[in-house]
Amino acid sequence: MQAIHNIAEICARHGITDVVLSPGSRSAPLTLAFARHPDLTVRVVPDERAAAFIGLGIAQAQRRAVALVCTSGTAGLNYAPAVAEAFFQHIPLVIFTADRPPEWIDQLDGQTIRQRNLYGAHAKGAFEFPVDTSHADAKWHSARIVNEAINLAQAAPAGPVQVNVPLREPFYPKAGEEIVYERDVQITHNHDSKPTLSPAEILDLRQQLRAAGRVVVVAGQQPSNPGLLAALYEFAQARQVPVVGDIIANVGEVSAVQRQDIFLAGLSKDDKVALKPDLLITFGQSLISKSLKLFLRDAAPAQHWHLQAAGEAADTFRSLTRVVRVQPAVFFQQLSVLKISEGVVFKGSNPILSAPQILSKHSDFGSNPNGATDNPVVTSANSEVRNVIQPVTWQHADAAAAKFLRQFFTDESQPFNEFSAFRHALAALLESTALHLANSMAVRYANILGLPQGRQIEVFANRGTSGIDGCTSTAVGAALAQPGRPVVLLTGDVAFFYDRNAFWHNYPLPNLRVVLFNNHGGGIFRIIDGPRQQPELDEFFETRQLLTAENTARDFNLRYFPVLSFAELEAALPVFFAAETGAAILEVFTDSKTNAAFFEEYRAAVKAAFA
Amino acid sequence: MQAIHNIAEICARHGITDVVLSPGSRSAPLTLAFARHPDLTVRVVPDERAAAFIGLGIAQAQRRAVALVCTSGTAGLNYAPAVAEAFFQHIPLVIFTADRPPEWIDQLDGQTIRQRNLYGAHAKGAFEFPVDTSHADAKWHSARIVNEAINLAQAAPAGPVQVNVPLREPFYPKAGEEIVYERDVQITHNHDSKPTLSPAEILDLRQQLRAAGRVVVVAGQQPSNPGLLAALYEFAQARQVPVVGDIIANVGEVSAVQRQDIFLAGLSKDDKVALKPDLLITFGQSLISKSLKLFLRDAAPAQHWHLQAAGEAADTFRSLTRVVRVQPAVFFQQLSVLKISEGVVFKGSNPILSAPQILSKHSDFGSNPNGATDNPVVTSANSEVRNVIQPVTWQHADAAAAKFLRQFFTDESQPFNEFSAFRHALAALLESTALHLANSMAVRYANILGLPQGRQIEVFANRGTSGIDGCTSTAVGAALAQPGRPVVLLTGDVAFFYDRNAFWHNYPLPNLRVVLFNNHGGGIFRIIDGPRQQPELDEFFETRQLLTAENTARDFNLRYFPVLSFAELEAALPVFFAAETGAAILEVFTDSKTNAAFFEEYRAAVKAAFA
Repeated sequence: MQAIHNIAEICARHGITDVVLSPGSRSAPLTLAFARHPDLTVRVVPDERAAAFIGLGIAQAQRRAVALVCTSGTAGLNYAPAVAEAFFQHIPLVIFTADRPPEWIDQLDGQTIRQRNLYGAHAKGAFEFPVDTSHADAKWHSARIVNEAINLAQAAPAGPVQVNVPLREPFYPKAGEEIVYERDVQITHNHDSKPTLSPAEILDLRQQLRAAGRVVVVAGQQPSNPGLLAALYEFAQARQVPVVGDIIANVGEVSAVQRQDIFLAGLSKDDKVALKPDLLITFGQSLISKSLKLFLRDAAPAQHWHLQAAGEAADTFRSLTRVVRVQPAVFFQQLSVLKISEGVVFKGSNPILSAPQILSKHSDFGSNPNGATDNPVVTSANSEVRNVIQPVTWQHADAAAAKFLRQFFTDESQPFNEFSAFRHALAALLESTALHLANSMAVRYANILGLPQGRQIEVFANRGTSGIDGCTSTAVGAALAQPGRPVVLLTGDVAFFYDRNAFWHNYPLPNLRVVLFNNHGGGIFRIIDGPRQQPELDEFFETRQLLTAENTARDFNLRYFPVLSFAELEAALPVFFAAETGAAILEVFTDSKTNAAFFEEYRAAVKAAFA
Repeated sequence: MQAIHNIAEICARHGITDVVLSPGSRSAPLTLAFARHPDLTVRVVPDERAAAFIGLGIAQAQRRAVALVCTSGTAGLNYAPAVAEAFFQHIPLVIFTADRPPEWIDQLDGQTIRQRNLYGAHAKGAFEFPVDTSHADAKWHSARIVNEAINLAQAAPAGPVQVNVPLREPFYPKAGEEIVYERDVQITHNHDSKPTLSPAEILDLRQQLRAAGRVVVVAGQQPSNPGLLAALYEFAQARQVPVVGDIIANVGEVSAVQRQDIFLAGLSKDDKVALKPDLLITFGQSLISKSLKLFLRDAAPAQHWHLQAAGEAADTFRSLTRVVRVQPAVFFQQLSVLKISEGVVFKGSNPILSAPQILSKHSDFGSNPNGATDNPVVTSANSEVRNVIQPVTWQHADAAAAKFLRQFFTDESQPFNEFSAFRHALAALLESTALHLANSMAVRYANILGLPQGRQIEVFANRGTSGIDGCTSTAVGAALAQPGRPVVLLTGDVAFFYDRNAFWHNYPLPNLRVVLFNNHGGGIFRIIDGPRQQPELDEFFETRQLLTAENTARDFNLRYFPVLSFAELEAALPVFFAAETGAAILEVFTDSKTNAAFFEEYRAAVKAAFA
């Protein structure tokens, strides 16, 4: 069992601090090794689907790998949705699946499936722990595998890795027997190189940038990254390019353009021509805004550069011409004209800071001597920029969209509906909130409405796979990992009840608040065009469901705030978000037909305002 | 879309009647094709994990394939636990996973994962539907694939098959547009051959049987099968061999030995020698009884024949010497001495009857002219059997175990505990019940206690993978598929709350009764030896959970019967099981320490009685 005990030691020595495990008998040696290790926080979550998403939420918040431990059989298969989300969102998970020894696979023993490479194309790697480590080479192999798995999970792009651990009986030490962790176990650290551009490459890219005509930067989903934001800010200033970011891109502090989901849905085809990039520069992962995606696919820029240091690059807009293999921050630093011409070395070379620091850092932007302006994208001409580029057009559209939103929602006669209620909830968010947005409508509403300014809110959403299956558990993981920070989940009823087992464990969540928009079904299907014209809408798409969260709140000792009107909502929000309230659900009841009608009004108003 | 619509037509023409689908946008063309087909019953279940187990429960009850339909992304991954269970339990599922077209995979679009061969080693096959069926060959291909998938799923051993269906927009017909099903779509039926033994093989096997010494038949998990039971009965009579069957083998009507979990745990090593088979004949899938498995592994019979017409054969007892590739019923018919010597043709050649028929058929056994006895294994010597075999020993041990059980439970001073409460619940089961036993303790308790005699109860349990993840959903599927039959689930609290979403849909379950044994944690860990000696028992193994089913019952409009004593239990049971009660949960609250202590008493009593 020494090799098994060393798994916990190796994890700890690689800086892993958190383990989520689900109970089992086959996994007992792993459970004991992790549970007794002094440097590890081990939490027990019985539903493996929820456990894996909770682990993902912790890893996302801590920005380091989390270990998952489960028993043999279908336990590991219940991890699969979170594993896929981690794979596509680049979140490191090291998954230890206990297994029967190989000779007993397919021999009709209980809880025995075919666990090798259980996650197929959705894991970065799958390792098989040796079943017998009595030979010295096998013991070396066993430690090597764990090192390799952790390093692989954390190497960019990060992701999930499976270590399948076959275990023979006996599983348990004798009563009172101590577990010893070998301090001299082999530890292999991996130092990822940080590629940079050569002077020749920089020169080439600068020339192409100058020649490119209209340049637009679009940011995809990514965690807050202060080093990147600072570099991006400099670049946008120097080059006078608009930076377009959906809410999940966490670039709100530097991007002048955030309301593209509104104006791109409204502008006429002719007007959109003025926005068309000649050179599109992208980084990060997915976009939410379908309007933006369709616009860029339709616009077909002559060049599309995607910045990604490692891993497969997606051609999201069918126009990819160049993948630049550096960190986006490095690219923007090295291509920032002012930097190069002045020979200034950028100081923010270590971009990993904790979340509150990230954002407070940006509030220094106002006093930045190179760009003292409230609007980080300066519009004055820069002598180095040869072509006439028109960032103002994107910015004017964005400003018009902001104005449109303010006007649209001042209508006092609006019925109680979830879009408006959502706006109230966003407005009430506290400073430094970690905001989790569930699929499917919550993240879309938020992307339209935008965040309140200056509150240093960081946004998370499971947009790797865009599933509803683990949104609550992910937020629960975030709340566990950051007990001193408000964690707010905005979610719909289908996503919420799907993942109720997020709460089924014994860990308090005093900093978690769930705003649940309950329209008793998949409201999105009433809003998108296709299904609402089908006779099957009610039964097979929207799928009316009758649950409310009242009993769930009762089951899990969560404070419960049901609201049915704007007045009730406004009255509830300050109490709900107050620190002393503790874990709570605010359930906003709306009618899905009213919601659909109101959203239709919104769409019509957009068309009228921008056409 | 014609090729998509034809999927529903082909399913219906192959005799599929039931479809379980989960809502989605990408899957809309499949949804509409299935929902509008006049010969298909389509049910909507939002949580795909529950949906797949519900489908499995329907397929198991109906003994034919069920179609599952889900949207793209992690939806299909949530099917994985049920897919693995179906794979190992040989239940046919045809799984249609909607997908993006191949050019959009890995391009950061929402709900897009790598869906080809999503279930890896746990599907019998994975087909890729053509993305464009405008070419005549592609249309032929599309229909061929669906035929192949259904035939593969149903061919022995049955199992799950994936058809991945890439779909391009538009997903929806125009409002009012009709879906046409092509009646002349190609249908390819597959006729499985029923292999038989040649006269030479029969002669050889008969000779080996005669020469073999002590022969023991052990039945693994299988659905009720009247043809098999009749043949097995004849064989056991003729050869005077004991037939040993766990509760999930559904051979209780002919097996003389059912309490092996008791006496094999009690008998001394020397006494067990008398039971040791020289030739072990097995059929069916897994066993529950660990005592039986350990005994047979230790006994190491000189010969072990396993009867299985097709598929991989397991060597469950490390002694497999021969796999006989015929249906067990065929083997027992052809090897039944009386049959061969008399030249009688066995009449029960079509073993597929509906469940109530299956069992009522066996009640005719009493009037069978060849073996009129209450005990189907006759103990008189048969002149054809050369060696001295001792079936009486197994039978005597079984009879002693039955007597032991009666005596052990007559002690009136026993505290309220779940083992005793379980016995009360079993005794109250109605005639013709489909009994679902959850993992992990429920199925073990039931296997020790046995079924009430003569009530034609058929037993189901997810012993393909022995997971707790879908036990409730499987029972829900069974209840939906057989509305006229009582379906009873006996379950523990961890399995029950894990799978609460089994009830999250809009279909009434008037024939379903759930008896929930709530000891607030994984009681099994307090009962097995290893973990109860560890300081981590409470937190990391038993994992105390505080839920009761009261709020769940409220959420889903289930009648709720909480009981805390034998008196309350006895009073509740008749009302609870009454047909007019409708869907209900009877929650039996016990204390896990009391349960463990009582079970320890039971174990000590077994040892004392049999040693």
